[in-house]
Amino acid sequence: MESCNYSKYDFLAKLGIEETSLGCYTNGEWAAGETEVTSINPHDNSVTSRVRLATAEQYELCITSMEAEKERWMLTPAPARGEIVRQIGEKFREYKDALGSLISLEMGKIKAEGDGEVQEVIDICDFACGLSRSLEGKILPSERPGHFMLENWNPLGIVGVISAFNFPCAVLGWNAIIGFVCGDLILWKGAPSTPLVSIATTKIIADVLKANGFNSVFSLCQGDGVEIGQLMTNDKRIPLISFTGSTHVGRIVSQVVAKRFGKCILELGGNNAVIVLDDANVDMALKACAFSAVGTAGQRCTTLRRIFLHESIYDGFVEKLVNAYKTVKIGDPLDSKTLMGPLHSKLSVELYQKALETIEAQGGKILSGG
Amino acid sequence: MESCNYSKYDFLAKLGIEETSLGCYTNGEWAAGETEVTSINPHDNSVTSRVRLATAEQYELCITSMEAEKERWMLTPAPARGEIVRQIGEKFREYKDALGSLISLEMGKIKAEGDGEVQEVIDICDFACGLSRSLEGKILPSERPGHFMLENWNPLGIVGVISAFNFPCAVLGWNAIIGFVCGDLILWKGAPSTPLVSIATTKIIADVLKANGFNSVFSLCQGDGVEIGQLMTNDKRIPLISFTGSTHVGRIVSQVVAKRFGKCILELGGNNAVIVLDDANVDMALKACAFSAVGTAGQRCTTLRRIFLHESIYDGFVEKLVNAYKTVKIGDPLDSKTLMGPLHSKLSVELYQKALETIEAQGGKILSGG
Amino acid sequence: MESCNYSKYDFLAKLGIEETSLGCYTNGEWAAGETEVTSINPHDNSVTSRVRLATAEQYELCITSMEAEKERWMLTPAPARGEIVRQIGEKFREYKDALGSLISLEMGKIKAEGDGEVQEVIDICDFACGLSRSLEGKILPSERPGHFMLENWNPLGIVGVISAFNFPCAVLGWNAIIGFVCGDLILWKGAPSTPLVSIATTKIIADVLKANGFNSVFSLCQGDGVEIGQLMTNDKRIPLISFTGSTHVGRIVSQVVAKRFGKCILELGGNNAVIVLDDANVDMALKACAFSAVGTAGQRCTTLRRIFLHESIYDGFVEKLVNAYKTVKIGDPLDSKTLMGPLHSKLSVELYQKALETIEAQGGKILSGG
Amino acid sequence: MESCNYSKYDFLAKLGIEETSLGCYTNGEWAAGETEVTSINPHDNSVTSRVRLATAEQYELCITSMEAEKERWMLTPAPARGEIVRQIGEKFREYKDALGSLISLEMGKIKAEGDGEVQEVIDICDFACGLSRSLEGKILPSERPGHFMLENWNPLGIVGVISAFNFPCAVLGWNAIIGFVCGDLILWKGAPSTPLVSIATTKIIADVLKANGFNSVFSLCQGDGVEIGQLMTNDKRIPLISFTGSTHVGRIVSQVVAKRFGKCILELGGNNAVIVLDDANVDMALKACAFSAVGTAGQRCTTLRRIFLHESIYDGFVEKLVNAYKTVKIGDPLDSKTLMGPLHSKLSVELYQKALETIEAQGGKILSGG
Repeated sequence: MESCNYSKYDFLAKLGIEETSLGCYTNGEWAAGETEVTSINPHDNSVTSRVRLATAEQYELCITSMEAEKERWMLTPAPARGEIVRQIGEKFREYKDALGSLISLEMGKIKAEGDGEVQEVIDICDFACGLSRSLEGKILPSERPGHFMLENWNPLGIVGVISAFNFPCAVLGWNAIIGFVCGDLILWKGAPSTPLVSIATTKIIADVLKANGFNSVFSLCQGDGVEIGQLMTNDKRIPLISFTGSTHVGRIVSQVVAKRFGKCILELGGNNAVIVLDDANVDMALKACAFSAVGTAGQRCTTLRRIFLHESIYDGFVEKLVNAYKTVKIGDPLDSKTLMGPLHSKLSVELYQKALETIEAQGGKILSGG
Repeated sequence: MESCNYSKYDFLAKLGIEETSLGCYTNGEWAAGETEVTSINPHDNSVTSRVRLATAEQYELCITSMEAEKERWMLTPAPARGEIVRQIGEKFREYKDALGSLISLEMGKIKAEGDGEVQEVIDICDFACGLSRSLEGKILPSERPGHFMLENWNPLGIVGVISAFNFPCAVLGWNAIIGFVCGDLILWKGAPSTPLVSIATTKIIADVLKANGFNSVFSLCQGDGVEIGQLMTNDKRIPLISFTGSTHVGRIVSQVVAKRFGKCILELGGNNAVIVLDDANVDMALKACAFSAVGTAGQRCTTLRRIFLHESIYDGFVEKLVNAYKTVKIGDPLDSKTLMGPLHSKLSVELYQKALETIEAQGGKILSGG
Repeated sequence: MESCNYSKYDFLAKLGIEETSLGCYTNGEWAAGETEVTSINPHDNSVTSRVRLATAEQYELCITSMEAEKERWMLTPAPARGEIVRQIGEKFREYKDALGSLISLEMGKIKAEGDGEVQEVIDICDFACGLSRSLEGKILPSERPGHFMLENWNPLGIVGVISAFNFPCAVLGWNAIIGFVCGDLILWKGAPSTPLVSIATTKIIADVLKANGFNSVFSLCQGDGVEIGQLMTNDKRIPLISFTGSTHVGRIVSQVVAKRFGKCILELGGNNAVIVLDDANVDMALKACAFSAVGTAGQRCTTLRRIFLHESIYDGFVEKLVNAYKTVKIGDPLDSKTLMGPLHSKLSVELYQKALETIEAQGGKILSGG
Repeated sequence: MESCNYSKYDFLAKLGIEETSLGCYTNGEWAAGETEVTSINPHDNSVTSRVRLATAEQYELCITSMEAEKERWMLTPAPARGEIVRQIGEKFREYKDALGSLISLEMGKIKAEGDGEVQEVIDICDFACGLSRSLEGKILPSERPGHFMLENWNPLGIVGVISAFNFPCAVLGWNAIIGFVCGDLILWKGAPSTPLVSIATTKIIADVLKANGFNSVFSLCQGDGVEIGQLMTNDKRIPLISFTGSTHVGRIVSQVVAKRFGKCILELGGNNAVIVLDDANVDMALKACAFSAVGTAGQRCTTLRRIFLHESIYDGFVEKLVNAYKTVKIGDPLDSKTLMGPLHSKLSVELYQKALETIEAQGGKILSGG
């Protein structure tokens, strides 16, 4: 067995991560198959710890146990579900530092951003707790004497959440927490390269649900990405798939789910530009551009990729931006002085290097980095 | 009997105004007492025609007949009430020119503004007809298993509308038309000095209601202003009073209705100012100021009374504004070349002259008019 | 050239239908290719008149002219679009009897149902006119000092409407009229077997739009069904497809549009059942079942196909229902005594006969009809 | 100085209540004048502890310090105010048992009801925290090209809350907590006979606000009831008065506030009846009636005062209800076996005895109690 740095990070044990963790949470229990993967630290490519993946059989167990608990959850009053969500928020507050560190370690974003992801989940819990008492439908007048019309929102049932490596915790939170107060159950497949965040996040949520008597409102199925993803998108028992990831895969998910008349929430790629005119506040624009391009090492769907500068400000703006980039400290994301961590994977690095070559081949200039 | 100009204006007969009209519409019939008043043309102080006023007994008849029809109207489906409102809108379209002329004649505002008032009623009918199918309440989650909460809007019953001379038609329209689709019945006391507009407007609305089988959903009680006003504000059978008029009277109405735990809509006086800074678009500001000060001869709650000018633009702005005022043609409001009609009454003229004296006494300068 | 009954029906000329009509309305003009089809009267299989179909080139012309008018329409204030919609409603009121007759003639539903379809469009115009002043977005608090969030609804652009034979007019109305007030433009492909209703409906809508200065806010592309349908579903310039029709075709539409990240509104098949318990009001249940099964000759998505009866009421209920069916007068849908018209096409008849054979083969009993 | 039972109740010190407490919290400090009152235990009329009352000068200090902090609070983002409200909810959770006991001791309702009042405040905090992110206004279409309309809700400023003895804590919570997230500041006058609950509740709320840097968002002015009440209702700096209490006083408040065009929320008396028909579920009706009549010793606005029984069930129902009443254990509200505590004051007892005499004088029968 490959050696790992598990013991180096106190926060792992605090979060319930073991040297070899199990990738499936179903029916209130942790389980896994035989296949084992490692969690890689993108800063130095060392192994943090190991995870045994969920199997197709365990996927099926997730679904059947969720189906069995579905009606009881749906019939639980929304404010009672909101109270559970509030408790989940309190638990995330308790583990914010540890989980923020793990996100930083496994994804590669700096610690402040890791903590920020957890804070987003906490905020959503606060919002959703209130929402549980104000989720409103409508009562509308009817043409028919003595009648009226009701527009009421009912739970869908099992919602499948497929999330990406760049926000390994917050994306799950946005989807799951709102789903919970609406009466939905959540089956999660986290990104293949961030299994520890998936497991730690699941422990926090699942423990609160279990303490409130629900074993199957939330399931984690961290297995082979393609296999589990296909099982989910094709499964009629999952009326809604929330997918975050590449436009390429999103297009496939969209069609497969459309074929069975399911619903999709798609959060795909971006190609964002900033336009700076000649009367702009240049300092504010500079800060916005630098933050937007450098944050999460440029691995966000909202990352800035292009700037259109008015010719009258072009020279000064570019010079200032290059200077700003030079001050960005790149390094270990867990080091509080670091402003930019590593790219998440070897594949990312290769794609980045190819992009640089393409720029030069097309006659572009590399002004900074490269 | 005083001679009058009744036969001079074709549109009076078209609107159903007679040489002596009756001031009360109740239970589908026109009625009045013995007291007779005249409608004065503020442009030349001539008498247009005569009106016999409603009595306190007729007020009581209005209320009792409305109470008798109340339940049937409330139980009529909102979209069916909306269809009646749509027909009322069509009827106002048909009479727009005639009623606009009468408003101009009796109130003194120019014809374009008179027509504009009718158009506002038409617009409200269109809006309210759609509203009759979308007046929504809420269905909300309950803490209690198997329960939910409904927030539904029910009709109030009889709504009393007390309107002012400066918008003798539109104010009634805003209140009555929305009230109708909500299932409310409207009892109207128009301004004492615009009885013909009250009667013509009532004929249009009441005829449509009657054709749809409702005699008492709308009543007009054009009587002694103070007496009828006091009856209305003190009447527990009128859960909501909508009052438009002076701040002085509005304050009394507010207290009287509060004493019986009724509701009030108050549309009272204003003291509006424009602030023009040194970087303003002066042409746009000039037009806005001139229009806002001159429109309706300054007799609107939204009339401009004060301008605060940045010192750097003061001289030029004042000069241009004085020049703009000089081009305003004052005269017969029914003449299409007139931009500003007369003040509405002798009292208004006296108050205006006193205001001019006060300005001079305080050391102010009269730059234009006076 | 085949003879036809065109001259037999006065309402055809009134609606602007000619002995040979053109199937494409684009850029304010009527056009068509060479291919000609006939409109068949399902009551006697006679030919009513002829239609020349739109071509793929004309489809392209529709789209490009709509794209050219798109911005002007989107920037027209919603209440101004609402006023146009109100005028469209008035025009449908004017042609209600004629268009209701044409729907009855060409689709085969009885005259009262044909008129009812037009009334639904009229109702939607009233609703949408009001909606044009109340289409609301939200302004929400932000975490950031001095900021707020806006959620505003913008027009999509060109909406493609593909409708079915059973509601050849109302389905277009529901989609197009709401789309108009939202600032969308509508490209319509009507059912292949109801081209005259498509053309007559288009004339009513398009004439009002043209009188208000808009030539390309609405286009009709009545061409080869499969070809035009495929062009529409694959066209990125159409961000939303509203499809009404079979589940089989809807599933294909859903996937094709999903592939290009477009949006779909799908109104597909149904398989509706009524459950009658032993404490039911049998008379009310009988009427509901009979009306629901017989209306539109059973060709609605909401048609009743199955009844589950409590055993204690089974015998009596079945007998009464069979008796009720016997009283249903079947015949010419334009005859006011007819309660049930013909099936719409030869294909429908064949499918019906096959269904009867299947019932018998499975051991079912035919209690009435057959 | 009168002796008191202060040392008998541990929870008093825990809540920050002293043997002699100060009745005014203003500008982050506790203050009071010379006048001293006692808090009476209604169970045995013993003195619990003493309170020195706020003066008119201190009232003025409350208002001026709140005016000074008003703008900073209003400009604090709603979600940031929501976070403070969440912390207030956590603090109420911490003190729930102690404060519930104090409510029971001072008001006289049983401990479970005292705890229940605190729980209501906690629930409102959860709800309001979510609300702080969803308090929405509207963006609406305008007739004018290139324009839109915004309907946004701004804070009012200082809200005056005047509450009653029967819900000495929850009423404040409903008003203050929602007001906080809306950006309003709260000035509270609690009931004269429940000063300790006012002080303890204020400490909980004010400490959290202070820890977040706000000294004057919340003020308590527990002074002479009539004097402080009149100052508040007449004060133009308080745009909204929320009054809970008798219909008689509410009518006065309503008029005084109406005179200055202020707003009122009035929560006044009730006279509730239950109607039990012959097909009712008698057991459910009995429980509902008994609970509704006996809860809070009949001192709620929602208390049941009258039952209308169908004659066919009259005899059995009355007998069962009398039997149910006999099982109600009356006694010390802090004793967990007690189901009904004392009336709140000597005045209440006198009024109750007079009511019994009136019943007999009118020929009524006393079936239970008396």
